[in-house]
Amino acid sequence: MALMTGTQYIESIRKLNMKIYMFGKKIESPVDDPILRPSLNSVRMTYDLAQMPEYEDLMTAISPETGERINRFTHIHRSTDDLIRKVKMQRLLGQKTAACFQRCVGMDAFNAEYSTTYEIDKKYGTKYHENFIKFMKYCQTNDLTVDGAMTDPKGDRMLAPHQQKDPDLFLHVVERRPDGIVVRGAKAHQTGAINSHEVIVMPTISMSPEDKDYAVSFAVPMDAEGIFMIVGRQSCDTRKLENTEMDVGNSEFGGVEVLMVFDNVFVPNDRIFLNGETEFAGMLVERFAGYHRQSYGGCKVGVGDVLIGAAAVAADYNGVPKASHVKDKLIEMMHLNETLYCCGIACSAEGNKTESGNYMIDLLLANVCKQNVTRFPYEIARLAEDIAGGLMVPAPSEADLRDPKLGPVVEKYFRGVASVSTENRLRILRLIENLTLGTAAVGYRTESLHGAGSPQAQRIMISRQGNLPMKKELAKAIAHVKE
Amino acid sequence: MALMTGTQYIESIRKLNMKIYMFGKKIESPVDDPILRPSLNSVRMTYDLAQMPEYEDLMTAISPETGERINRFTHIHRSTDDLIRKVKMQRLLGQKTAACFQRCVGMDAFNAEYSTTYEIDKKYGTKYHENFIKFMKYCQTNDLTVDGAMTDPKGDRMLAPHQQKDPDLFLHVVERRPDGIVVRGAKAHQTGAINSHEVIVMPTISMSPEDKDYAVSFAVPMDAEGIFMIVGRQSCDTRKLENTEMDVGNSEFGGVEVLMVFDNVFVPNDRIFLNGETEFAGMLVERFAGYHRQSYGGCKVGVGDVLIGAAAVAADYNGVPKASHVKDKLIEMMHLNETLYCCGIACSAEGNKTESGNYMIDLLLANVCKQNVTRFPYEIARLAEDIAGGLMVPAPSEADLRDPKLGPVVEKYFRGVASVSTENRLRILRLIENLTLGTAAVGYRTESLHGAGSPQAQRIMISRQGNLPMKKELAKAIAHVKE
Amino acid sequence: MALMTGTQYIESIRKLNMKIYMFGKKIESPVDDPILRPSLNSVRMTYDLAQMPEYEDLMTAISPETGERINRFTHIHRSTDDLIRKVKMQRLLGQKTAACFQRCVGMDAFNAEYSTTYEIDKKYGTKYHENFIKFMKYCQTNDLTVDGAMTDPKGDRMLAPHQQKDPDLFLHVVERRPDGIVVRGAKAHQTGAINSHEVIVMPTISMSPEDKDYAVSFAVPMDAEGIFMIVGRQSCDTRKLENTEMDVGNSEFGGVEVLMVFDNVFVPNDRIFLNGETEFAGMLVERFAGYHRQSYGGCKVGVGDVLIGAAAVAADYNGVPKASHVKDKLIEMMHLNETLYCCGIACSAEGNKTESGNYMIDLLLANVCKQNVTRFPYEIARLAEDIAGGLMVPAPSEADLRDPKLGPVVEKYFRGVASVSTENRLRILRLIENLTLGTAAVGYRTESLHGAGSPQAQRIMISRQGNLPMKKELAKAIAHVKE
Amino acid sequence: MALMTGTQYIESIRKLNMKIYMFGKKIESPVDDPILRPSLNSVRMTYDLAQMPEYEDLMTAISPETGERINRFTHIHRSTDDLIRKVKMQRLLGQKTAACFQRCVGMDAFNAEYSTTYEIDKKYGTKYHENFIKFMKYCQTNDLTVDGAMTDPKGDRMLAPHQQKDPDLFLHVVERRPDGIVVRGAKAHQTGAINSHEVIVMPTISMSPEDKDYAVSFAVPMDAEGIFMIVGRQSCDTRKLENTEMDVGNSEFGGVEVLMVFDNVFVPNDRIFLNGETEFAGMLVERFAGYHRQSYGGCKVGVGDVLIGAAAVAADYNGVPKASHVKDKLIEMMHLNETLYCCGIACSAEGNKTESGNYMIDLLLANVCKQNVTRFPYEIARLAEDIAGGLMVPAPSEADLRDPKLGPVVEKYFRGVASVSTENRLRILRLIENLTLGTAAVGYRTESLHGAGSPQAQRIMISRQGNLPMKKELAKAIAHVKE
Repeated sequence: MALMTGTQYIESIRKLNMKIYMFGKKIESPVDDPILRPSLNSVRMTYDLAQMPEYEDLMTAISPETGERINRFTHIHRSTDDLIRKVKMQRLLGQKTAACFQRCVGMDAFNAEYSTTYEIDKKYGTKYHENFIKFMKYCQTNDLTVDGAMTDPKGDRMLAPHQQKDPDLFLHVVERRPDGIVVRGAKAHQTGAINSHEVIVMPTISMSPEDKDYAVSFAVPMDAEGIFMIVGRQSCDTRKLENTEMDVGNSEFGGVEVLMVFDNVFVPNDRIFLNGETEFAGMLVERFAGYHRQSYGGCKVGVGDVLIGAAAVAADYNGVPKASHVKDKLIEMMHLNETLYCCGIACSAEGNKTESGNYMIDLLLANVCKQNVTRFPYEIARLAEDIAGGLMVPAPSEADLRDPKLGPVVEKYFRGVASVSTENRLRILRLIENLTLGTAAVGYRTESLHGAGSPQAQRIMISRQGNLPMKKELAKAIAHVKE
Repeated sequence: MALMTGTQYIESIRKLNMKIYMFGKKIESPVDDPILRPSLNSVRMTYDLAQMPEYEDLMTAISPETGERINRFTHIHRSTDDLIRKVKMQRLLGQKTAACFQRCVGMDAFNAEYSTTYEIDKKYGTKYHENFIKFMKYCQTNDLTVDGAMTDPKGDRMLAPHQQKDPDLFLHVVERRPDGIVVRGAKAHQTGAINSHEVIVMPTISMSPEDKDYAVSFAVPMDAEGIFMIVGRQSCDTRKLENTEMDVGNSEFGGVEVLMVFDNVFVPNDRIFLNGETEFAGMLVERFAGYHRQSYGGCKVGVGDVLIGAAAVAADYNGVPKASHVKDKLIEMMHLNETLYCCGIACSAEGNKTESGNYMIDLLLANVCKQNVTRFPYEIARLAEDIAGGLMVPAPSEADLRDPKLGPVVEKYFRGVASVSTENRLRILRLIENLTLGTAAVGYRTESLHGAGSPQAQRIMISRQGNLPMKKELAKAIAHVKE
Repeated sequence: MALMTGTQYIESIRKLNMKIYMFGKKIESPVDDPILRPSLNSVRMTYDLAQMPEYEDLMTAISPETGERINRFTHIHRSTDDLIRKVKMQRLLGQKTAACFQRCVGMDAFNAEYSTTYEIDKKYGTKYHENFIKFMKYCQTNDLTVDGAMTDPKGDRMLAPHQQKDPDLFLHVVERRPDGIVVRGAKAHQTGAINSHEVIVMPTISMSPEDKDYAVSFAVPMDAEGIFMIVGRQSCDTRKLENTEMDVGNSEFGGVEVLMVFDNVFVPNDRIFLNGETEFAGMLVERFAGYHRQSYGGCKVGVGDVLIGAAAVAADYNGVPKASHVKDKLIEMMHLNETLYCCGIACSAEGNKTESGNYMIDLLLANVCKQNVTRFPYEIARLAEDIAGGLMVPAPSEADLRDPKLGPVVEKYFRGVASVSTENRLRILRLIENLTLGTAAVGYRTESLHGAGSPQAQRIMISRQGNLPMKKELAKAIAHVKE
Repeated sequence: MALMTGTQYIESIRKLNMKIYMFGKKIESPVDDPILRPSLNSVRMTYDLAQMPEYEDLMTAISPETGERINRFTHIHRSTDDLIRKVKMQRLLGQKTAACFQRCVGMDAFNAEYSTTYEIDKKYGTKYHENFIKFMKYCQTNDLTVDGAMTDPKGDRMLAPHQQKDPDLFLHVVERRPDGIVVRGAKAHQTGAINSHEVIVMPTISMSPEDKDYAVSFAVPMDAEGIFMIVGRQSCDTRKLENTEMDVGNSEFGGVEVLMVFDNVFVPNDRIFLNGETEFAGMLVERFAGYHRQSYGGCKVGVGDVLIGAAAVAADYNGVPKASHVKDKLIEMMHLNETLYCCGIACSAEGNKTESGNYMIDLLLANVCKQNVTRFPYEIARLAEDIAGGLMVPAPSEADLRDPKLGPVVEKYFRGVASVSTENRLRILRLIENLTLGTAAVGYRTESLHGAGSPQAQRIMISRQGNLPMKKELAKAIAHVKE
């Protein structure tokens, strides 16, 4: 069973015994919770599309390790072509969900661990790579969704892990046993956690020898003893409780972030991928972040496609699809969106083989990719709001539309071109609201800004990778500067 | 009693018999409704500040008509100094409410009607100016809040009012009686309607003779027979029902938009300010829009001040107030915000006396002002989200913080610098969320874009007012072009 | 004779015995030099326009000191109205010259010295204000052009004046005599120097007590013993030697920068305005820079008007004035240009009276003004180049057009719309080249960037003047943060 | 002899009998002309680098047609890998010349003709593909540089070719003979013409049947009877005549544009690639433009590398390499430059096989690439000018530096950090001037804007290729819109 159906996936998640809290209460059946369910549906799409022949090339791959056809989300990239397909798969999923489909963090963690554990073992004779391969095959064979957990709470951002007043503000080893380790701490902003079977934990920054206990990476099941989660709020989250399919804009798909707490969680030895080799913490972070910055050149582009389409439909419904300024704004939106895609493709096409044999994206271009993602979706959103018109937000509720007395009034006064129903017009406007101000804005805006590292993190990498000394030499040669 | 206290104002609104619907139901006591109340509080601030000596110069003026000290919101501008004070008053109110305080539409309608009715009367010998003066004095003496209602539903935007399939998609006269007229139609996106005593209705576009019945302007009380309103939804609106002061970000102030329906409303003759003189519809629109585009150079700047302050506090709480990129982003936010203010001040300082004697802003610069407002708040918001950090949205709920079991976990893991309470950190983040994604984002983003006319409306005015022919002559003179 | 004619001005400059070097040679008659003359013509325009009744209000003022009508460039601002007129005068001159007319540095130095000397005297009982008033009256009465010299060479920018390896990299006092002081050093980038009668020297940065000898300000005639100048190169400077009026784009007006060297120049006591009071160096710099940053909201706007006009003419000549994208780009150019103007007007309208009685612009807004000037002219230039089309640069020379054999070919193939002569088309394109790449680009681009302080200098001022602590308090009040 | 050395190339050009005019005079030995020579040197670099083993992979390829190793500039792309190598070769050449190396137009014409002639023949049974293959092999075997000439003078841009008042404003067939055709007209802005052996002429727009005589494509030697050229002016062109290696900034390399006139030029039948099949004119234009828009994602990036390097050196010499705002601006420059590179790589990696078997770039992404090139180099240039400082332009001439009296003064006052010679500092500033305002600015700015089609041309293509209907369907699916 290397490929689960969507239904099988849902049931497999239902069987887990995850501890999830929201609004101060434990959620007994997360799979059926109206606030959480859309986020599960987004992940489900990664299973559903993998079943469809037309997407087989993008959504699946043959695992060299197991020889079976597996979901690409559990695949180790073996070529630049694999890297490019990853980006295309993500764009496709963004188009189908208009939301974060969450599963890429696991794929990115897989590929970062694959090469990093290989290099640690080479230096220290450890068995992390073997541990990781075993875990990876298990996930491939069972088609599991894996969360990749990196971001610690961090507390005072000017202080290193070991300098924090509360030592738990970065996740760390609190006990070392013969059979494994015990860890404590938390990981913040975990988007896919509640819909995952397993989680790979990684450190979140480069570390010095004093941070030894913090340089730890491992995998555990999501319902391991000691793990619990608190669901974060989102703009318009509770609108999903109001029994209105229309007003939520995108009733089927979404994403949800949680704080994942590790309250003295035991990790057996064969699930450990890094344990105190502090100088490799930075490599793991850099590689995971690199892959993940590539990801944004696919997924956000797909979501952008939906938003551009929605704006174009809104223009149709307003009766202005031929106004030159409207056409020009749609062109600008497409231009910006495809520029992001170019970055996603380019850092993939320029990927390189690592020592371990898998493929790494071009680090400089992946950071350039993400840096653009911190800017363009905001401008695309602004243009969408511009085209949508002033009605986009303060449109009346579905309850008003369905009301016998008010319904006809809403029908009458919120109609655009006579040939389109008011309901359809409101639906499109609600979708744009959802993506620019509502639950999906958390994914399309905030996550575009801070996911895979905040803008400044990319700038530091661009500075490091940009090879300024070589550029200076070029200039001196042309200017005939002799020093 | 030319100046009401805030309490008197609230009670005066409570006495009105407005018909307000929301989520399919009639709101029996709008003044006490948790979703609507913050918007009332914002208007109340225009009364409260007018009582404070330190703001007397900004908030009040001596009416040349009544000789009394009146609230500036009911004042006719008599100098460029009045115009500048208006902008400063608006910035102050934006700072105090971080929301739309709504009362400026009445002031802008007052000043547009004042000069336009004067010019209509001059041409046609009508009595609109006299009608208007009488109405104005009534409002000044009783310190009333007046809604200025311009935006019609418009239907198919490529069609003129009389060409629409449904004739009511622009408000129009349906019956002419000896004692007055009867009107039908609606006005959309009325932000201050539910908190106003009276409403001035104006046409929304320039008109041709065929649109005669649509060229109508008048004033009626908000609870006139035949008027009812449907409240529009806002991002996070129902969060205000969840008994959490923290999670809403700004629990005290807000703004709300409604559709105001005129279902055969009678307007007595002495309340009519335009009635069929189609060529003056455009003048009224242009002047009202001009004043209102000036307004945005004050109010949004004040809201921007709060958002900049919130981002700076968030940086303090994250422990990074001295990071050079954070400082630079705060500078950029202030730079953009003050550029908007420059535009608000400049179009005021360059104002001119109209034939009627009141002062009009510089039309070109007011349109330039609003055009910048359609851009910079979006970038300021993006920078605020950047500085706030990834936690801004998916922070846990107040319910989690107050929960005996989860509270300590939230306290522990969402703390930034050790010296600041997690609650304070969450409060500031929620305020930023409120302004960038939540209820206030409707005011700070969507309204900045579409209020007082969408971006393209300003571009058309800039094109008309920019005097390109003169600029061509300048160029030809320098280039020694002889034609 | 409080107002000279243009001709009188030229002759008065001719009489000076300035030492000016260019391309390694001394220029014997700078007034007649083809490279230098256009810059003289620009200053002359400040005299010519002052003679014209229609510009009297802008170009002149009544001096409270002499009681005579004087050129506004020698006037001390006595109101915000004076400050606004200054900006309008500058826009007018920019429109008439499409170049830097240079005389504002003197006006800005006058106003900065006026208030600063007053405050120094108040603290130290010195006679600087009296000295300055005497000098100022002399300039007013004789209608002199005064250079304001601030920028030192600065050497290693990380080092204070007294720390530089070569002590002369900042101008300083090298000898103190009973009758005056002797100074040595240089001032860089002096645009109006060669066309001025006198120069006011000011320090270029805030200083500490160790920099005592560098905290010096004074005025001397431009041909004082020991002063000499080296003219800097400009893009396309020597094209002015090629006997082509067409190819230079703007054959009449320009601006030129020089290095002004002070090789042991004696300054008599009554011409000294600052001498060792180091804590006032910063005030003088800040005020001069403040006034000068205001200036850019006038002069560059005027030049922008010419460039916008030229682009519009080019569009006419290309046959595309109605293409929607061309119209939109012209609107954008006007929008950006008027935004700069708004900043110039706003910092003037918000000016304040100093202790000495003259008026200071609003420092925050003046810095915001200049910061925008470091950006928008570049975008306006880019849009002008876009509209002009690919022919803008590589058009053939006037020599080709005038050649009997090649002329008809050029006529034929470089014609746009049939009704316009090729010569006129080429003239307009050359003007755009002049402003975006040629001699005038140094004024419209480089000077917009670095004149009156580089972008970072304004950002530091915005940071200081933006009152972030107050903004934080506003945010905390709204968010109900209690610390 | 499939690969010429640089020296052989220069001599081969010397042997041609081209008719080149400049400043109204015929240039007798263009190869030795100081204004033209740098442009020849740039093309020579394409020969020199092809001789170096370390660049063999990029600079050369094995021709499937001749079996020989040929210069990549004469190669037909057989894979996406070929397309990517093209971009990398161009970046390399941009880095080595900081100028336009001109030879890519021939390569782009080759690849556009290859596939288009194939498809014309398929439809009409013509022999254009055979003609083209023969010509191509000739060029490959002899390592020729080929100009690709597309842009007609166009006259009134609102009129089709056959509607122009002067029929020659688009190049056209004026006589049809048994052995060939005679053409008349001109091609504008030909950058590489004077350094090429052959020229491929192509139409410049889509055509309708009435434009039959204008739908013509062919190849002729550059010195064919009837061809002559007029060299266009460039900013600072004649500075190259002033015997100063320093002041020109880049003394070795450059680019020059000419008007190429076809005064009744005979084209033999076997050199014709299109002759009246009007519906294929658009295909040829679109493909050539597509390849050429890809090119800009390589060459301008290479030039950008030099400019970024120059700015970084200038910062070093100013003593401020560690100032946070300087570092941040350098990062921004690299970010923008690499974004362009991403676009160049992505449209290559996403290339597709044509019917004829060669590879075409992805048209949408290539247009996105060029659209960004019309923007980012301008911002990169602005940032370079910002970092360089105010001295960048008005620095003194080399003549001043070499003068015995003035030299020491220049040395003294234009020194930055004490350890760097003033000469080196001036050299770097002159290079930045050259790229932002001087001769190279024509390549880095104007050509970035208008080369391969003006910005609006790309927007039209983005609109056509962006598949908006599909995006609308995505949005409707998510919003549950049923029509």
